[in-house]
Amino acid sequence: MDALDILTDLENVVPLFQPIFNAEEHKIIGYEILGRYVSEKEELSLGSFFQDEMIPEEYRIEVENVVFSKAMEVASCSGEQDLLWFVNREAGLLMMDDGEGFLQSILSFQGKGIRPENIVLEISDRHVQNHIEHLINYYKSYGIKIAVGKVGSESSYLNRIAGIEPDILKIDMSSLRSNNSGPAYLDVLHSLSILARKIGAAILFENIETPYQLQFAWKNGGRFYQGFYLKKPQTDLLEKDILKEKLKAEIHGFILSEKKRLQSYYDLRVELNSKFQDLINRNKKGHSSNELLKALGESMDGIAFRMYICDEDGFQLSPNLYKTDDEWIIQPKYENKNWSWRPYFLENIIRMRSGKKGILSDRYSDIETGEVIRTFSLPLNDKEFLFVDLSASYLHKREGLF
Amino acid sequence: MDALDILTDLENVVPLFQPIFNAEEHKIIGYEILGRYVSEKEELSLGSFFQDEMIPEEYRIEVENVVFSKAMEVASCSGEQDLLWFVNREAGLLMMDDGEGFLQSILSFQGKGIRPENIVLEISDRHVQNHIEHLINYYKSYGIKIAVGKVGSESSYLNRIAGIEPDILKIDMSSLRSNNSGPAYLDVLHSLSILARKIGAAILFENIETPYQLQFAWKNGGRFYQGFYLKKPQTDLLEKDILKEKLKAEIHGFILSEKKRLQSYYDLRVELNSKFQDLINRNKKGHSSNELLKALGESMDGIAFRMYICDEDGFQLSPNLYKTDDEWIIQPKYENKNWSWRPYFLENIIRMRSGKKGILSDRYSDIETGEVIRTFSLPLNDKEFLFVDLSASYLHKREGLF
Repeated sequence: MDALDILTDLENVVPLFQPIFNAEEHKIIGYEILGRYVSEKEELSLGSFFQDEMIPEEYRIEVENVVFSKAMEVASCSGEQDLLWFVNREAGLLMMDDGEGFLQSILSFQGKGIRPENIVLEISDRHVQNHIEHLINYYKSYGIKIAVGKVGSESSYLNRIAGIEPDILKIDMSSLRSNNSGPAYLDVLHSLSILARKIGAAILFENIETPYQLQFAWKNGGRFYQGFYLKKPQTDLLEKDILKEKLKAEIHGFILSEKKRLQSYYDLRVELNSKFQDLINRNKKGHSSNELLKALGESMDGIAFRMYICDEDGFQLSPNLYKTDDEWIIQPKYENKNWSWRPYFLENIIRMRSGKKGILSDRYSDIETGEVIRTFSLPLNDKEFLFVDLSASYLHKREGLF
Repeated sequence: MDALDILTDLENVVPLFQPIFNAEEHKIIGYEILGRYVSEKEELSLGSFFQDEMIPEEYRIEVENVVFSKAMEVASCSGEQDLLWFVNREAGLLMMDDGEGFLQSILSFQGKGIRPENIVLEISDRHVQNHIEHLINYYKSYGIKIAVGKVGSESSYLNRIAGIEPDILKIDMSSLRSNNSGPAYLDVLHSLSILARKIGAAILFENIETPYQLQFAWKNGGRFYQGFYLKKPQTDLLEKDILKEKLKAEIHGFILSEKKRLQSYYDLRVELNSKFQDLINRNKKGHSSNELLKALGESMDGIAFRMYICDEDGFQLSPNLYKTDDEWIIQPKYENKNWSWRPYFLENIIRMRSGKKGILSDRYSDIETGEVIRTFSLPLNDKEFLFVDLSASYLHKREGLF
């Protein structure tokens, strides 16, 4: 298809609308606007047209504007006040007139009931320069929302997120099937969900194509969902509640299984707490730290692989007791090391000091063995705290692979 | 300086060593190896030489090899078995011979006591292609450690981290002074520290130049520290414990202030718990949810700005009670929304159900107001849970700006 054919036939350039659903009401909260060329001969997406740098910028801008204007006509006729309209723009094209053209285009629909607050601008940042941050702040001052796309994939930058403070992080779910979807990829998405929480951005998962991807999106703080598993792009707008019952039921299943998982985590914590309290009470009297650790080790075969005692500032008071293939050994070199710099360490000390109970950590990768483990920690008294690293195989048996 | 002058005068190409300290022992655990040219006329860093694409690759590789070999001579003479040697390599140069030259160069020093496990390779990833992941896995199989640099700045990619699973994430502390150091930048670093924990990577903060930056590095899970505030690059190796007392004392100060901060967080939780238990006991009988919320609102002026009640699956059972400038209003549209997708939500439900006590959340940005807040949540009974969003000004008064 020649670019000129499209340019001389703008009548057949039309917007498509792909619905975006939310997690709290299971309804359509907006649409991503996509461009499409529909002639008698053929029908094609305009995605590659917009990105084709061989086509002069002004032509691409013209077609972008046609798609956007036609979409806004549909939007204003819908009578919906609260829908969000997700619009993609190449940073380079946007900057041609310092973003003024796009802004005026948005404002021209205000009389028809489209407020800037309803527009979510997603800027492709492949060639984003620093000065686009000024433009973004300019847009934000009008209430236009900003989405950052392709988060977690190659063409995005963490610092970009920090600089832009976007309203929405878009995460492309299709990477979950690629060779990047190892455990570390899941960890990256987890840390993005924490980042989104901290900066007050909502996460939109796009390209959801399977129930598993939907569950994954839900589990990782996804507020908005988009993809063929839900709805394909359409020429018309849809009834908001079109998937409400289906989504509600499906997500309720996720909720039940997650609660079950969390309850078994909590049960494990309670169980370990009484087990250790019991063992300690039996062994504490008259024993040195080393003797206490050794006594505990005997009962912890198959459950733990490392134990040590720290003070409330994180200095290790004992050596490590470490389980090799066949026996528990003493590793003196860890004595006097300080662990206060580790995430959650001091937080847990304060929690233990106040709550007088054991704490079971999140799952994390042990920095020496690389295995995914949890640490159980328990106050021995006001000044000494026991740390027990639980073995991956034991946790796997107790909790499954989650 | 002409590149040829350097190439014809390799005698005056020397390694510099910048010490890297660790958080657990406050001692030197290794050195970053830097290249320097020292002639009678001048002295200059070779950093820009290595990156200068106008200089043929083989010349740059030759100079890199000279620096590395001379550094390894110093290393092997030091008699130290456990030091780590951080080596920077341009991905492009490394790939010239599929990484074989660098590997052989490392292995050639094995006889002199330098094991591959002592080498930390930092690959500059400005032009990193996907196939370098194979090379990295090849190196890893020899025990060579991998660091990923410039994390959180423009030239790095989250996905790269996921693909490479590095041993060390290097974070450049100098961004903390730039215009990127808004609150969102701190949030980015926080989420990187969580990512590092999850994947079992250690964080190395480099370019630490002030005590504040050191504290910041410590607070954000930094295990390794490097920068002028500690030690400049040197021609010789230093006594391992050269900063032990100073660092230990300084970090002990961080520990005390962090414990104080955490204790006041915990005290606030206990205080809110008794305050709310008391209010609820006085108002529960015979009141509907709405009446209970209104009664609580009267006592919560200046403390909270939003309250609502959810069931254990995250469905909101009540409207929002929301504080405008001068009064508490009812916002019915929130009723029946589901919040189970939000990070920590179900986890806190399970904790409340089992612990029968209130929970004070981490600090996060409210998705509607954008303010940094905490949520206090409390079980009303087995099936109803009260959520109270605390106002930023109250938290600021109680906790300070941290």
